Amino acid sequence: MEEVFGVQQKLNGDTSQEIYDQISSHLKEPEFQPRALFDKFNIEVLCTTDAATDTLKSHQKIRESGWDGKILPTFRPDSVVDINSHSWNSEIEKLSELSDIFIESFSTYIDALVIRREFFRSMGATATDMAATGIIPQELSKVEVERIFQSALKGNVAEEDAISFKSHMILESARMSLDDGLVMQLHVGSRRNHNPELFSKFGPDRGADIPVKAEFTKSLSLLLEKFGTSPKFLLIVFSLDESAYSRELAPLAGHYPALKLGPPWWFHDSINGMRRYFDRVMETAGLYNTVGFNDDTRAFPSIPARHDVWRRASANWLAGLVVRGIVDGEDAEEMILDLAYNLAKKAYRL
Amino acid sequence: MEEVFGVQQKLNGDTSQEIYDQISSHLKEPEFQPRALFDKFNIEVLCTTDAATDTLKSHQKIRESGWDGKILPTFRPDSVVDINSHSWNSEIEKLSELSDIFIESFSTYIDALVIRREFFRSMGATATDMAATGIIPQELSKVEVERIFQSALKGNVAEEDAISFKSHMILESARMSLDDGLVMQLHVGSRRNHNPELFSKFGPDRGADIPVKAEFTKSLSLLLEKFGTSPKFLLIVFSLDESAYSRELAPLAGHYPALKLGPPWWFHDSINGMRRYFDRVMETAGLYNTVGFNDDTRAFPSIPARHDVWRRASANWLAGLVVRGIVDGEDAEEMILDLAYNLAKKAYRL
Amino acid sequence: MEEVFGVQQKLNGDTSQEIYDQISSHLKEPEFQPRALFDKFNIEVLCTTDAATDTLKSHQKIRESGWDGKILPTFRPDSVVDINSHSWNSEIEKLSELSDIFIESFSTYIDALVIRREFFRSMGATATDMAATGIIPQELSKVEVERIFQSALKGNVAEEDAISFKSHMILESARMSLDDGLVMQLHVGSRRNHNPELFSKFGPDRGADIPVKAEFTKSLSLLLEKFGTSPKFLLIVFSLDESAYSRELAPLAGHYPALKLGPPWWFHDSINGMRRYFDRVMETAGLYNTVGFNDDTRAFPSIPARHDVWRRASANWLAGLVVRGIVDGEDAEEMILDLAYNLAKKAYRL
Repeated sequence: MEEVFGVQQKLNGDTSQEIYDQISSHLKEPEFQPRALFDKFNIEVLCTTDAATDTLKSHQKIRESGWDGKILPTFRPDSVVDINSHSWNSEIEKLSELSDIFIESFSTYIDALVIRREFFRSMGATATDMAATGIIPQELSKVEVERIFQSALKGNVAEEDAISFKSHMILESARMSLDDGLVMQLHVGSRRNHNPELFSKFGPDRGADIPVKAEFTKSLSLLLEKFGTSPKFLLIVFSLDESAYSRELAPLAGHYPALKLGPPWWFHDSINGMRRYFDRVMETAGLYNTVGFNDDTRAFPSIPARHDVWRRASANWLAGLVVRGIVDGEDAEEMILDLAYNLAKKAYRL
Repeated sequence: MEEVFGVQQKLNGDTSQEIYDQISSHLKEPEFQPRALFDKFNIEVLCTTDAATDTLKSHQKIRESGWDGKILPTFRPDSVVDINSHSWNSEIEKLSELSDIFIESFSTYIDALVIRREFFRSMGATATDMAATGIIPQELSKVEVERIFQSALKGNVAEEDAISFKSHMILESARMSLDDGLVMQLHVGSRRNHNPELFSKFGPDRGADIPVKAEFTKSLSLLLEKFGTSPKFLLIVFSLDESAYSRELAPLAGHYPALKLGPPWWFHDSINGMRRYFDRVMETAGLYNTVGFNDDTRAFPSIPARHDVWRRASANWLAGLVVRGIVDGEDAEEMILDLAYNLAKKAYRL
Repeated sequence: MEEVFGVQQKLNGDTSQEIYDQISSHLKEPEFQPRALFDKFNIEVLCTTDAATDTLKSHQKIRESGWDGKILPTFRPDSVVDINSHSWNSEIEKLSELSDIFIESFSTYIDALVIRREFFRSMGATATDMAATGIIPQELSKVEVERIFQSALKGNVAEEDAISFKSHMILESARMSLDDGLVMQLHVGSRRNHNPELFSKFGPDRGADIPVKAEFTKSLSLLLEKFGTSPKFLLIVFSLDESAYSRELAPLAGHYPALKLGPPWWFHDSINGMRRYFDRVMETAGLYNTVGFNDDTRAFPSIPARHDVWRRASANWLAGLVVRGIVDGEDAEEMILDLAYNLAKKAYRL
């Protein structure tokens, strides 16, 4: 508010209208247009999240516009993986069209995904993203996966088959990442659309997504058995269940070279959330098994503030280690740069 | 000990007898009688917890005594809701008698409860209280609830039906609260009577109640779907599972206007417990989605000390926010009064 | 590194070879031999963990060597209790031979265990140790336990019977501890051999054991009902799930006289892990329901550092209590000695 929009007054009922007007008026000025803010914020890379069936025309347009801001897509396959969603069959049609592959079997489906991933990569994508709450990666036999896929094509999928299919697809996605080098991200722990009235009036993503308990040690076991020590693979995991930090996530990230921890996310992307993350994760996982900080905001003007909070929280944590003689000044200088910038850049292969 | 009983010595084996005698002797003095202490402690309101079938004669007696101390009842319906308890049928007889309603069906049972709640309200009650460990509020069909109720009247209830009935009754209680304005409290997380030997020798509530894991996001989902945004409804939840603070309770309280969080309770009603509560709850829930502090002691002389600890812990937390520039002095002055006094008073509609 | 091996340089890629050589060369010197380090470290007692079928010949040899270092065995019965392990039948043969009892039934099996425990005790053992992740102590009928035992003798055990048997054996072990005074230890919470590739190449205990959620309130309920208030019995529990500290373990240890909490273990045997342990355990359990600190290292030269970290963390915690006026200097002087030394000595009956 203060640094981007110059708000000096205290936020409260008396000042709200004036501040609203001030921000509104700024947003119409040329220097508050997205590209101007992008430059002002000194953003090096901004990644969007795009459905596997997105044409990426907006990305194409940006490229053709001559603007040199680096805006990259991220491959999000949920809409073509959630086979019991109403839109799955039409999504598969789109996927078929865009990949120029007639999808009539699981193997042609995988071929089409490989082609889409390649297209995303050609447009600069370096990562994928999947929601995986309550999903345990598991391998299906070829016969079984084909049976389920055919039933999905016919629009007739049992709930448990849909879950098995997603479980299997997490492994397939990891396999594809191993081939094409796209970093794999899993977001775990949110129960979506907790407030049905809000959902029916305004749709998804309105703030009514509430965390639930998460489990990683057993759930990630097969995925890590298969790919956890592969030097070419990188899996970044985000959690909304802080009780898993020191119990499961830090030990797993400390052990498997291919696993790194994403920063504290969503409700925990805050001063206290970051402090707890440093406290519970770093000793066991090690700083270099985390990815530093990437914000995942939908609020563009919030980007500087979010990185600022992370950098202050990082500096505060690190200063505590220096003051207590656990880290020396030389290492701290390197670590603070890694926390603020290098780790995220390296993890996302930017 | 020090402020109420003037104990100056250190507590240990050498001094125990002397201190015991000192306290014993004080307790016989007029200025240590309950009403004298009530005045000395400067208590504005003290609420008891009373069975739905309590005549509230003690409350009546206090009123008739001419004493102006404000002692209010709280409606606790567990004994008439736990249909597989041995005493349920006799409790229903009492309920029938006190409400002057012949309870022969679920609807007459609800009518009787409404009448009792109204009586409690006429005696000053502003809240209800229920234990809900392991209970997920769920709606039963009219036919189903009647079937279970009739089997209970015959003294022949299946364990799973008793649980379904309680699940249903939490929703019914919320519905009644919406009508009569009694604040609804749910206490979650204790396994009662963990030590059977202690229980058989001395009965319940002797300190052998041990917490278990709790779940709120899924469990409260139907209750909040139905009543979570109703302006007339207020639900206060207490937890013994601190891992749910930042994962489930704070996000839920931050989202649903009708949900507020009770203070750290029981084992967590302590300096460290309060610090952890402030740390994990406030950022996401917001101070004004909590109810400040109400102690729930059975030890009358402990009341000043318990509020003193809360007030010191609150001041300490708030001072930390002021020192770091997160809250300014003006807001802090308001917040500390709300923490110490206003929030509880407002939440309990006193 | 610094105090034991005199390493002065900073550990990094440039200095690694030199430091490795320096340590290697030291390890060949007489003053770095185990007995010399034992004296230098001022170790009073070192306990090994030994299978129930171990002859304790090494212990015998130490005794006969004339060296006065106190090295005691600990009775670890897992290999004769895990009836579905491949080596169980050969282990039973050894057990039979060593105890001079023909094991043909559950009661002769118990007799043999009693004899082995007695032998361990004669060699100085004061404690037993069992892994109990996911095991809920439960009593089997005599008929049932005999049926399972006979099927095990025939090498044909169902998975669920093996679990029931271990559940029963935890109770039997407690019963034997009550008779012979061996302190009972339960380690809970690790999923062993999470990385199958590592396991197949290098075997168990290579650092791929990852914690999982643990439950104590329900799981320990029968064990504590039977033995939790017995003055002769002592059960020490270790947890890898910190969320159980304040929710389950501290309340249980605060209630049952026979239950004490082991120090923060494994991933939590660290500065932050200890700080969290003090924070969440002490207020509710009470210091004297913990066992102070016993390290469980496999790395002999790490012993001084591990106790040093605990002592500093203890002193830091205690100093915080003194500075805030919660503990006075007189008590603190006693408490710090108990934390550093007396509690462990007393708990393990040394």
